[in-house]
Amino acid sequence: MFKVKILGSSSATPAFSRNPSAQVVTYNDRHYLVDCGEGTQIQFQRYNVKLARLDGIFISHLHGDHVLGLPGLLSSLSIFEREKPLPVYAPGGLVEMLKTFFRISETYLKYEVEFFPMEDFQPGDIVFSTDKLRVKALPLTHRAFCRGFLFEEYNKRRKFDFFKAKALEIPNEYFHLLKQENDITLPDGRRIQADEVLMDADAPLSFAYCSDTRYEEKLLPFIQNVSMLYHEATFMEDMQKRARETQHSTAREAASIALQAGAKRLIIGHFSARYRDLNPLLEEARAVFPDTELATEGTEFDLRANV
Amino acid sequence: MFKVKILGSSSATPAFSRNPSAQVVTYNDRHYLVDCGEGTQIQFQRYNVKLARLDGIFISHLHGDHVLGLPGLLSSLSIFEREKPLPVYAPGGLVEMLKTFFRISETYLKYEVEFFPMEDFQPGDIVFSTDKLRVKALPLTHRAFCRGFLFEEYNKRRKFDFFKAKALEIPNEYFHLLKQENDITLPDGRRIQADEVLMDADAPLSFAYCSDTRYEEKLLPFIQNVSMLYHEATFMEDMQKRARETQHSTAREAASIALQAGAKRLIIGHFSARYRDLNPLLEEARAVFPDTELATEGTEFDLRANV
Repeated sequence: MFKVKILGSSSATPAFSRNPSAQVVTYNDRHYLVDCGEGTQIQFQRYNVKLARLDGIFISHLHGDHVLGLPGLLSSLSIFEREKPLPVYAPGGLVEMLKTFFRISETYLKYEVEFFPMEDFQPGDIVFSTDKLRVKALPLTHRAFCRGFLFEEYNKRRKFDFFKAKALEIPNEYFHLLKQENDITLPDGRRIQADEVLMDADAPLSFAYCSDTRYEEKLLPFIQNVSMLYHEATFMEDMQKRARETQHSTAREAASIALQAGAKRLIIGHFSARYRDLNPLLEEARAVFPDTELATEGTEFDLRANV
Repeated sequence: MFKVKILGSSSATPAFSRNPSAQVVTYNDRHYLVDCGEGTQIQFQRYNVKLARLDGIFISHLHGDHVLGLPGLLSSLSIFEREKPLPVYAPGGLVEMLKTFFRISETYLKYEVEFFPMEDFQPGDIVFSTDKLRVKALPLTHRAFCRGFLFEEYNKRRKFDFFKAKALEIPNEYFHLLKQENDITLPDGRRIQADEVLMDADAPLSFAYCSDTRYEEKLLPFIQNVSMLYHEATFMEDMQKRARETQHSTAREAASIALQAGAKRLIIGHFSARYRDLNPLLEEARAVFPDTELATEGTEFDLRANV
């Protein structure tokens, strides 16, 4: 399972039932929160995502609409009796922000927050990994220090050809050895090479989270052929000047990045409160990159669905 | 108009679509926010309360469920181009909390926040007033420094007896002078005393906001005969021990305070996440004080309705 669930799609201020930025990336049974705007813990409840099961938090930058849900969410995890340490990847200033709030509000967490300042990583660096998924830092260009995150599968197992193994009359109990790429000798003396029953692995899937950023082609080498790109699209093209000033992107620019990166799919979000109807943004992006969808609250995107 | 609209009724952590504490007190065309838990600005939109029209903010204490919505709400007011200064009454630690966040997130407000530390006031002191409404500090007893707020009418105009004035054949253009308690001489030489056409003023209405607090009878002299009392009722009576430990009240205790204060109506709120169904809390309170209602999101209580 490799899914992305949208909990917030609004920019600076909430509008039209759109909450500020937050997404949950689920890989197999692990859950990662990416950005945490105000109200994110409430969105967890609304969309039935289990807060208690979070395995890591990734914060792109410290503007309020990406981080103000964090003190409350961390407090609630403590109320829910979390004991497991929680890794948090974010710009270094977050530590002072949280410590100040926790001190003044007399909040004591029952678990440890393992803090990793994103300033310690270069773009492209692996900041986090399990045996199957790793997260790399992406260079975004915004008013504040800002990093995107690339969630990518790696180390993918080759697929086991069950029917071929059956045809070769290999007993089931040898399957797990072969799946782990071991050559084996059967009781009847036959030598079986793992290659005989292993097919190529599926292409690794990847998800790039890019918010907030101006249009910036320096990002492209880091997200080549990404399976799914989330790219902010705060404005439409007629607001290009405002996009430049605030270092945000237009829907068309997001689509252009997706196209140049060879992305399979594009999700746009971080919509300005000036847009009640989001369809014009969707149309503007699709004119450049047809496989575009809107990041709307509660929507879950399945990365396996586009293999 | 004297109304109270509930924007949040949950305690420490949001639960069952209940947001953390926030209420809007409207007196004539002035709007005051009392407490500001996470997501309050989103609740303003959901329940069609105009954020831009806020005339003052009152924060009881600095636990996260009463204050974490404030940085985002203040930022949004700036995005909405507010220019008018905004008075904020809160414990002194709020200044450092906000300044730290605004500095690190590089947020600059376009208007002035006029900050009044509640430590500067004694219980019973008037902390704010217009010509018709004043707000007094109430002593609450909680783990953190905590103040309630009494919104009370004062200086009420006596009521003008229109029919009597008509019977005395007083021309309409003299009404406003009489309403302002001036004695007048009519063109026909008759002298009219204001007392002849003025009746007693309506009894002044008052609203006491009391959250969070343990059961504490020292509060009673400050809220005698209050028209409407909001009192926290985090737990039910079977959780008395937990209520003591956390310095919260039970529904029965809230009702007992209302009864002893001679309150006209009681609103209970700040419900623990352990209660999905709130009716048992309501029943527990009503057994002691029948005129009790639940503080539920979106409900508006009209203080004039119980005159």
